[in-house]
Amino acid sequence: MNTFKHSFKNDYSELAHPRVLAALASVGTKQFEGYGLDEYSSKAAEHIKKKIGKPSADVHFISGGTHANLTVIASALRPYEAVIACESGHISTHETGAIETAGHKICTVRGENGKLNAADIEAVVDAHADEHMVKPRLVYISQSTEVGTVYKKAELKEIAECCQRNGLYLFADGARLGAGMNSHACDLTYSDIADMVDAFFVGGTKIGALFGEAIVICRDELKTDFRYNLKQRGALLSKGASIGVQFVALFEDGLYDELAKHANDTALKIAEGIKGLGYDFLSDAETNQIFPIFPSEVAEKLHGLYGFYDWQRMGDMTAVRLVCSWATPDSIIEEFIGDLSTI
Amino acid sequence: MNTFKHSFKNDYSELAHPRVLAALASVGTKQFEGYGLDEYSSKAAEHIKKKIGKPSADVHFISGGTHANLTVIASALRPYEAVIACESGHISTHETGAIETAGHKICTVRGENGKLNAADIEAVVDAHADEHMVKPRLVYISQSTEVGTVYKKAELKEIAECCQRNGLYLFADGARLGAGMNSHACDLTYSDIADMVDAFFVGGTKIGALFGEAIVICRDELKTDFRYNLKQRGALLSKGASIGVQFVALFEDGLYDELAKHANDTALKIAEGIKGLGYDFLSDAETNQIFPIFPSEVAEKLHGLYGFYDWQRMGDMTAVRLVCSWATPDSIIEEFIGDLSTI
Amino acid sequence: MNTFKHSFKNDYSELAHPRVLAALASVGTKQFEGYGLDEYSSKAAEHIKKKIGKPSADVHFISGGTHANLTVIASALRPYEAVIACESGHISTHETGAIETAGHKICTVRGENGKLNAADIEAVVDAHADEHMVKPRLVYISQSTEVGTVYKKAELKEIAECCQRNGLYLFADGARLGAGMNSHACDLTYSDIADMVDAFFVGGTKIGALFGEAIVICRDELKTDFRYNLKQRGALLSKGASIGVQFVALFEDGLYDELAKHANDTALKIAEGIKGLGYDFLSDAETNQIFPIFPSEVAEKLHGLYGFYDWQRMGDMTAVRLVCSWATPDSIIEEFIGDLSTI
Amino acid sequence: MNTFKHSFKNDYSELAHPRVLAALASVGTKQFEGYGLDEYSSKAAEHIKKKIGKPSADVHFISGGTHANLTVIASALRPYEAVIACESGHISTHETGAIETAGHKICTVRGENGKLNAADIEAVVDAHADEHMVKPRLVYISQSTEVGTVYKKAELKEIAECCQRNGLYLFADGARLGAGMNSHACDLTYSDIADMVDAFFVGGTKIGALFGEAIVICRDELKTDFRYNLKQRGALLSKGASIGVQFVALFEDGLYDELAKHANDTALKIAEGIKGLGYDFLSDAETNQIFPIFPSEVAEKLHGLYGFYDWQRMGDMTAVRLVCSWATPDSIIEEFIGDLSTI
Repeated sequence: MNTFKHSFKNDYSELAHPRVLAALASVGTKQFEGYGLDEYSSKAAEHIKKKIGKPSADVHFISGGTHANLTVIASALRPYEAVIACESGHISTHETGAIETAGHKICTVRGENGKLNAADIEAVVDAHADEHMVKPRLVYISQSTEVGTVYKKAELKEIAECCQRNGLYLFADGARLGAGMNSHACDLTYSDIADMVDAFFVGGTKIGALFGEAIVICRDELKTDFRYNLKQRGALLSKGASIGVQFVALFEDGLYDELAKHANDTALKIAEGIKGLGYDFLSDAETNQIFPIFPSEVAEKLHGLYGFYDWQRMGDMTAVRLVCSWATPDSIIEEFIGDLSTI
Repeated sequence: MNTFKHSFKNDYSELAHPRVLAALASVGTKQFEGYGLDEYSSKAAEHIKKKIGKPSADVHFISGGTHANLTVIASALRPYEAVIACESGHISTHETGAIETAGHKICTVRGENGKLNAADIEAVVDAHADEHMVKPRLVYISQSTEVGTVYKKAELKEIAECCQRNGLYLFADGARLGAGMNSHACDLTYSDIADMVDAFFVGGTKIGALFGEAIVICRDELKTDFRYNLKQRGALLSKGASIGVQFVALFEDGLYDELAKHANDTALKIAEGIKGLGYDFLSDAETNQIFPIFPSEVAEKLHGLYGFYDWQRMGDMTAVRLVCSWATPDSIIEEFIGDLSTI
Repeated sequence: MNTFKHSFKNDYSELAHPRVLAALASVGTKQFEGYGLDEYSSKAAEHIKKKIGKPSADVHFISGGTHANLTVIASALRPYEAVIACESGHISTHETGAIETAGHKICTVRGENGKLNAADIEAVVDAHADEHMVKPRLVYISQSTEVGTVYKKAELKEIAECCQRNGLYLFADGARLGAGMNSHACDLTYSDIADMVDAFFVGGTKIGALFGEAIVICRDELKTDFRYNLKQRGALLSKGASIGVQFVALFEDGLYDELAKHANDTALKIAEGIKGLGYDFLSDAETNQIFPIFPSEVAEKLHGLYGFYDWQRMGDMTAVRLVCSWATPDSIIEEFIGDLSTI
Repeated sequence: MNTFKHSFKNDYSELAHPRVLAALASVGTKQFEGYGLDEYSSKAAEHIKKKIGKPSADVHFISGGTHANLTVIASALRPYEAVIACESGHISTHETGAIETAGHKICTVRGENGKLNAADIEAVVDAHADEHMVKPRLVYISQSTEVGTVYKKAELKEIAECCQRNGLYLFADGARLGAGMNSHACDLTYSDIADMVDAFFVGGTKIGALFGEAIVICRDELKTDFRYNLKQRGALLSKGASIGVQFVALFEDGLYDELAKHANDTALKIAEGIKGLGYDFLSDAETNQIFPIFPSEVAEKLHGLYGFYDWQRMGDMTAVRLVCSWATPDSIIEEFIGDLSTI
């Protein structure tokens, strides 16, 4: 990566924000209870419950997103129950069959702009009529999505109501929740999310933490014995405080949203510059991931200067993915647009 | 925990050693490749391979010990194959059935001093004769063991040869490997371990790291596609460098052994003091975990001053577990023995 | 097997009773609904529900006992929940880890005469205190047991009450239910069983059927979606009527009990003869499986004449297993005792 | 079903062919070794190996098709490996997630006429590039397919070569193998199948048996310990001879092919009649399952006379499925066409 001016490959290229590391250093040799039963984990949970306006929620910390997805889903479902997700959903393609290894089929639908809707969900439910087929039981969405878009309030409400009508749990992968909630395109509050889904997680890894996600369980029946599931899946860290301390730092005075907003702002300024040069986008530029479409030879030349992934070939054109993070320097905006305009 | 003079509950009460945190802080906003493909993870792997004298080994980093155990074992076995382990083995009792959830039976034997021997193993193999029973295929040991003892060279050699004769993999849980290797009772080198087992892990969490273990795979056939297993089990951290950086700090100039030695030394000095007061022990005091046997009323009074776990009731006596760590202050030795002598 | 006078190896050596085969032949080319939704399966279920005095029970037919055990247990438990069973339980030793492959640990206790008691169960419950360990949730017993003994009413009542107190399901493997219920040593009725357990199965394979067991679910919460579990485990036969027809034949006029009684009577007459010759038994002779203890050289000589399994070496003695079935001829009693007395 | 003139719902509506039942009756109270180790199972295996011209194959008997699919696939794959199958494949839709419950993702492709081709397979392989995705490892096809069509020699050869190039196992679901092999549209011999696939099964349930399928393993590395897999999945019947006897009856003098041919012939005569009345078909009529497309009101009226399933709505038209079996009477052909022509 060192040979590039900058890498836009993803939002986990840089380790932790200095204030997160400082918080870890500040506890010194203080002794903690193990397995998340320490006071920092409690305090972090309180911060999150306050943020989402849901004192009754249960909060558990876990090291990464795939682990969060598989633990929540495996805990919620009986063996023959299945998940409904977008084809572009992280669990559908980029988790090496983690959900299937836990025993559950994922029924995928194409979706649009990385998002499901109620009609998609109902079509799957209708197609699964009897015991010769799996029984769809949980809907998986991502906020923000894998293609950088966000669910809006009306969209999420429609899905939540559809789930309720059909006896389905609604679970949101929030690996990039901060990016979603701080998007100009998003009219949802954190409380709205907590009110409408049954469980979700608040991603720390991609937004300033060294590692760690906060699983939030809103629905009572999903709370039972959840720590057993965590332990069984290898997810209950003995040094649970190592995540608790980080989430206190991220949530005690707004650092989380601040970092997410910086990532979004930087990406969207780059998007604006790209638009200004006349290029189109594969999906709406709404968060810290943008997907401009360049002539393939332009993309090729950019690869000599910047790190990023090609996302999709489209004839002579290539949609690429550019990701900004809490650490992306402002100066790179102008530099990138300058380079692009002279290629 | 704050109401005690000190907690001897375990060796993960304190977070990371300052040099580990300093190493994390030192990388600033440097950009890394994700998923352990960064230069720090490579460097850490090199340090470990050099330490164990096995350039051909594969090294993978993972967040915790239960996760390491389940990922290695699930990767090594076919569905009907089983594990042989001590009743006191961590996988047998304290991992919430993680191995069974991955589909595999654990055939337990009583063991002695927390250790298996060849006769134990062969008895299990002999009892599993045909396809109506599981097929034992992997032997799980811990170094140091769950009761603070260590395998000596002759003991490990006997087991390794037994495994070879019987077509069994040998896997060592090294959550406290440093404690084992730096024990006065241990005549094994790191190279000996690597030569005799098929896979093991080097525990960081309990020896100065914020979190993280290094899985080492010595046997070629267990190396294939191991990263698929990691990802599938939710164990492939996107910010893999967060562990790599720590292991470089622990292994580049001997910090790991130094910290393990401190934990052992402190525990053994306390053990000596306890012996001096005439008390016996449940198992040999060889590492940073010691198991003195006190009259239950003495144990009760100690609970008012120190944090620790009762391990086993024995009539009027109680065996307790005292654990020291890299962070246990020297001063606590004299203080604890003083308190004990005046109870 | 042809070289022996007779095989006492097991109670599935002979295929189906002639009346069972006649029933199968009698349906000719009649067309049935598939997957157990035919009228014979319904009628068989009615017969069984009447027999057990439980009209509210659900009855499902399945091809074999291991399959029944794994389907019921996998359906009843959440991933981290465990089974309590005797070491001699069929699921503990002779099902190739089927329960573990479905993800569940079996916590074994030694038991006596092949039977669990409340104290055994409570000891396991007490030893599993928190989320670092599996959560015992289902107790598995066999009636009759794997060593030929039977639970008596007081014994089963004690276990059932213990289960209720501790929030445990009680499941009875009835591969040899007929043998148990028709034992002189058993004071339980079929209704008692159905009242005290949450689920059980009525074994057909070992008592005159060509193949097939009837799973009976008494507890409402275990009934939900059970057919999904059957299908998912490969247990929902398309020609479900092939079992239904057999169970109608076995239950419409008492054939089932008649066949079980014959098997028991034959075995117990042989046991009496053996006792008369001065030999002891490993467990009480109560059903169609008896376990006499012979000098090993006697056992050796008997192997030249009869088919049977050695069960346990005891110094110079060998406990052997002799099993009778619905088809064991009366004449073999005298012949076997004669041979034994002259060896 | 009794209220219809005849049911075309499926080919498992009638139980066993009289010669199969007679064979079962003929063994009387003969004593057999258990678990498929009897002489009838051996003889049946010999008949099948001769039929397919592959003396080196391993043959195992199992009660049903879903069970065969899950046992073979679970045995062949490592945890992260996946299956490639048609969307219409039985494992993809009608096995309640059995393959996923065994831990494996199914990567589906649309296919055509119920069939995969090499390009489909290679597209899936190409899309799975690294350890963030499952690793396709086994291709599942059905002969004949779920929509009544058959793979021809050139088609199967292309697939087999594609599998070889890409390190994929090739497995054929032969629930209706007889129908496929006796189709006028099929230029494959049984030997061709055995030469080109790594494993398959010969379906008995749908072709005259009371129950039972014969799994045939051609590739050496898939043979190892297969009986362990059978037992673990509840598939190793204690009265294994109950299937062995049936397969001897089906294969000793050509009954299997004869019955399959009758089912095909009857269906194809009906198809001809339907064509003669001017109707089209959803897929080519090649075996005992045909899929005519009727105006929905015609289909509706037919439902009053015959049992069958609607398969797919197509505007005002409905494709229906008509299935014939070994037991379908010749007289029904004329009757059905007569009824159809006057509706």
